[in-house]
Amino acid sequence: MAERTVRKKTFAVIGGDLRQCCLANLLAADESIARVFALCMGEYTEFDSGVIRSDELEGVLPQCDAVIFPLPVSGGGELLNAPFSSSPPPISRCLRAVSPFAAVFGGMVSGEIQRMAEMYGLFIHDYYRREELIVRNCIPTAEGALAIAMQETARTVFGSRCLVVGYGRVGKAAARLFDACGARISIAARGQEALAWAGIAGYESIPIGEMGDALPMADIILNTVPARLFDEALLDRMRPDGLLIDLSSKPGGVDLEAAKRLGRRVVWALSLPGKVAPVTAAEIVRDTVYHILTEQEDSFL
Amino acid sequence: MAERTVRKKTFAVIGGDLRQCCLANLLAADESIARVFALCMGEYTEFDSGVIRSDELEGVLPQCDAVIFPLPVSGGGELLNAPFSSSPPPISRCLRAVSPFAAVFGGMVSGEIQRMAEMYGLFIHDYYRREELIVRNCIPTAEGALAIAMQETARTVFGSRCLVVGYGRVGKAAARLFDACGARISIAARGQEALAWAGIAGYESIPIGEMGDALPMADIILNTVPARLFDEALLDRMRPDGLLIDLSSKPGGVDLEAAKRLGRRVVWALSLPGKVAPVTAAEIVRDTVYHILTEQEDSFL
Amino acid sequence: MAERTVRKKTFAVIGGDLRQCCLANLLAADESIARVFALCMGEYTEFDSGVIRSDELEGVLPQCDAVIFPLPVSGGGELLNAPFSSSPPPISRCLRAVSPFAAVFGGMVSGEIQRMAEMYGLFIHDYYRREELIVRNCIPTAEGALAIAMQETARTVFGSRCLVVGYGRVGKAAARLFDACGARISIAARGQEALAWAGIAGYESIPIGEMGDALPMADIILNTVPARLFDEALLDRMRPDGLLIDLSSKPGGVDLEAAKRLGRRVVWALSLPGKVAPVTAAEIVRDTVYHILTEQEDSFL
Amino acid sequence: MAERTVRKKTFAVIGGDLRQCCLANLLAADESIARVFALCMGEYTEFDSGVIRSDELEGVLPQCDAVIFPLPVSGGGELLNAPFSSSPPPISRCLRAVSPFAAVFGGMVSGEIQRMAEMYGLFIHDYYRREELIVRNCIPTAEGALAIAMQETARTVFGSRCLVVGYGRVGKAAARLFDACGARISIAARGQEALAWAGIAGYESIPIGEMGDALPMADIILNTVPARLFDEALLDRMRPDGLLIDLSSKPGGVDLEAAKRLGRRVVWALSLPGKVAPVTAAEIVRDTVYHILTEQEDSFL
Repeated sequence: MAERTVRKKTFAVIGGDLRQCCLANLLAADESIARVFALCMGEYTEFDSGVIRSDELEGVLPQCDAVIFPLPVSGGGELLNAPFSSSPPPISRCLRAVSPFAAVFGGMVSGEIQRMAEMYGLFIHDYYRREELIVRNCIPTAEGALAIAMQETARTVFGSRCLVVGYGRVGKAAARLFDACGARISIAARGQEALAWAGIAGYESIPIGEMGDALPMADIILNTVPARLFDEALLDRMRPDGLLIDLSSKPGGVDLEAAKRLGRRVVWALSLPGKVAPVTAAEIVRDTVYHILTEQEDSFL
Repeated sequence: MAERTVRKKTFAVIGGDLRQCCLANLLAADESIARVFALCMGEYTEFDSGVIRSDELEGVLPQCDAVIFPLPVSGGGELLNAPFSSSPPPISRCLRAVSPFAAVFGGMVSGEIQRMAEMYGLFIHDYYRREELIVRNCIPTAEGALAIAMQETARTVFGSRCLVVGYGRVGKAAARLFDACGARISIAARGQEALAWAGIAGYESIPIGEMGDALPMADIILNTVPARLFDEALLDRMRPDGLLIDLSSKPGGVDLEAAKRLGRRVVWALSLPGKVAPVTAAEIVRDTVYHILTEQEDSFL
Repeated sequence: MAERTVRKKTFAVIGGDLRQCCLANLLAADESIARVFALCMGEYTEFDSGVIRSDELEGVLPQCDAVIFPLPVSGGGELLNAPFSSSPPPISRCLRAVSPFAAVFGGMVSGEIQRMAEMYGLFIHDYYRREELIVRNCIPTAEGALAIAMQETARTVFGSRCLVVGYGRVGKAAARLFDACGARISIAARGQEALAWAGIAGYESIPIGEMGDALPMADIILNTVPARLFDEALLDRMRPDGLLIDLSSKPGGVDLEAAKRLGRRVVWALSLPGKVAPVTAAEIVRDTVYHILTEQEDSFL
Repeated sequence: MAERTVRKKTFAVIGGDLRQCCLANLLAADESIARVFALCMGEYTEFDSGVIRSDELEGVLPQCDAVIFPLPVSGGGELLNAPFSSSPPPISRCLRAVSPFAAVFGGMVSGEIQRMAEMYGLFIHDYYRREELIVRNCIPTAEGALAIAMQETARTVFGSRCLVVGYGRVGKAAARLFDACGARISIAARGQEALAWAGIAGYESIPIGEMGDALPMADIILNTVPARLFDEALLDRMRPDGLLIDLSSKPGGVDLEAAKRLGRRVVWALSLPGKVAPVTAAEIVRDTVYHILTEQEDSFL
């Protein structure tokens, strides 16, 4: 397997949080050298042997074969997403220091950042756009939602009525997990095909336009649709003791103001994989990076 | 719901086998008139009250609001697929008798048959191309495969090693069912995405190019890929007591000659839904026909 | 492990059907000598190498270290249960030929047969009384019931309403399997404890006295209670298209006469493990025999 | 149903924590009068309408038809278990105030407390000894363990290797739940029967004497055996990043001193139902109290 050749490289792991820390450890465990930058003030300070903390960006980064930026790359604006660093460096400063022969990776790479990279002769592989990573991330996302449901409700998930809104990748994984725990699942989705899939999985399927009628029965609502579906009118139909967990990415699917006004319990759960299972989340990034490296090598043959 | 209006019609159910017989019963139970043609010699001769056997095609068909041809429409050549009829009529004769105002349905409608219909001012809605029907048919297909596996092997499915080749709709449904019965599932598929889906379902995932190495371990192999994958070399790597169930449509995925030569047990299971669960299969056709009728009516509003 | 010492023996496998044939093969595969008696006319005539067909009972049986009688030992009356033999020998003739130093095994050993064995200085270990065998046999029993349900109904098991009567070992295994296949399970049982177990498994639980009200809703009924529960009054409440599978041992739980009168479909499924999965059933007997041999050896230490 | 008659009573709910608060609400929702004592300072202060806070034990308790003490009754020593009360009353003072015609319930009633009750002409029904309560409590216990596992590990439960020690009621429920979440389950248990049950559930089964060899592979260990199994030698074989959740009741199954010395992560999770799902836990107590009341009434007929 090509995986032999993707190891024994010098990786730079730069910025990010627990997930990136774990990633550095995993790379070092694979016989690579892992140099970490802007990752040094975290609570998770115990790196495994083989991980080298590197302070001087300009001195060390040029010697790395592969550079892995965090998910997302930007911490908002021009600075690197580096919550564990006391002084996150500008993204441009990082890119400038990368060798033009290095393979570069990042998550949620904006057009702006990609253009910036091009100026330095680089192309950033966006691991977050890889279907394999998105699919595998569904598991820690679903587990995170389950942990929230268990903590935030006074009943067991077993026997609860759970409405999953949207039946894409996250919706499918969440429905399966809650179903496995004994919840009764309904799926609200658009289109005969999604409803047919929900039906053959054994769930009640509800056209999304009729979701309002299902809300008063739901103990737990899992939203996966990244559109402002939950307006005041829908929130009003929730049970007072119901819990709405919003798994959709920004801008989120819930009118949080209205929810507050109505006294509805809403948890907006962003970036669950890195929070609830940083090691697993790091493994997923590592495997995706390896696959991209392997494909690149293969394309040279 | 629009379903109210799709009922109380006069349906013609013409040709086909058990599935069409059950379909006629279901339509009659929904307050419609169901007239059956070329369906009269079956073993399943007990139609419910409300179903009317109609002998004269030309006399009765013009008065029907909706006409449902079987899956497939053609019995091979120009004659209707009508195994329960002693003298299957030509398809053209049927089409000629249909009212130009009727809604017409059929399964696996060839270009040739569609053109023939056009000559009579008709358009045949192919329910077999509807994703919802294809998805729901996966359940009886998977159950049929399970029934075959139980009959054809001297071991329990529980604890058996089951290799599913292809991870599309049928592959997913079959893997889930055999997994639920306690088999250990491996998926052989192409592409990181399908392998990632197999992985998060909890299965071993195998790049299809490495399938040969997995064959000697498999007690049961379920092929869902409609391409001649199983040539002599692969068949030779099967266990002598292994069972290969081919769920792929024509031309099938197995070199049956080679399998015979090598003494491998192969079951080519075609059209399982109509065979193992004709009532369920008919319900699926009925629901799909209703959906198409509803969409049509909606498009006139 | 003690299993090393239980192998490399000379086993006699005597009478019975497919399960005993498979057992002989399994023993031979474990480096033992397997001699088969009264097993020779079966369709499953291909014994593996290492299995020796033995015609002369008196000449060969005395040299065997362990003798395994079938389940049940008796074919009715004094003759051995030996459907594959053209002339089943009397049980007493077999016992007389067994060495007094041999370990002797049989299934469903009646008091009469045990007393007969004692006259020859033998004790027959009844493997059918071992909890481990009974528990493991539940899997092929449940799979057999599932195969029957799939063959005998015109609908998928998925989505069907299945009433399991009795929630002991077989009831639990059958409920779990049908549930895994997507049936909606109700359990009719006696006692708060059994009903509580059914409840935490996610099933509807019904006090057995109220079973009558549940019958008209059930597509499939699985009886596991070995008492004549299903009398004319209960059978009358079944759906006309319902299927009743009786998994209880003799005398069975159904008034078959009344069922016939009412036109109810009943399948009395006896000895499913040996029929639907003879290899698995033989593995279970083998493991149980090994465990008994190991315990005996340990008790000498 | 007799449940009609068990309602519309005056219940006293006395002492305890969240579970008792929820119980009072549930009783009030069932058309009974629910009077609460020694429950007033909890964070969960919002009782539903119909629940009456009663301060004067002596004035009010004599008028109640049924009195429900908490689980356990005693808070250690002679005082009532009443963590939400600023001054928990002595148990004897409570018992003295109960009408001799009242039905009295409590959880984990010690012989001493029962004798004390007898002195006042009372008998305390111990709902914690009812199999139905113990069985149903397994679900919130298993969910609590799952929530702990999700919070305390940096990996997903999906794909983790989970060793369940003991295969009684809690062991079975926990194994099923973790299995449903995608963990790979091994069961360490005593006796061929328990191991056979684990086997037919699809788990690896390990004789408890060989558990030591399985420990280095386990990511999560769930102990359900209430005996000091986990001594220094066994704890030493755990993975350094492994997590041991002890679900056994006092005195617990783990040498906590040794675990601390070795740096092993151990969570001793007591009384999970009342903590993680107080409403569900209260429903279980309510149903059990109702069943006992019904049985009593039936016994007078």
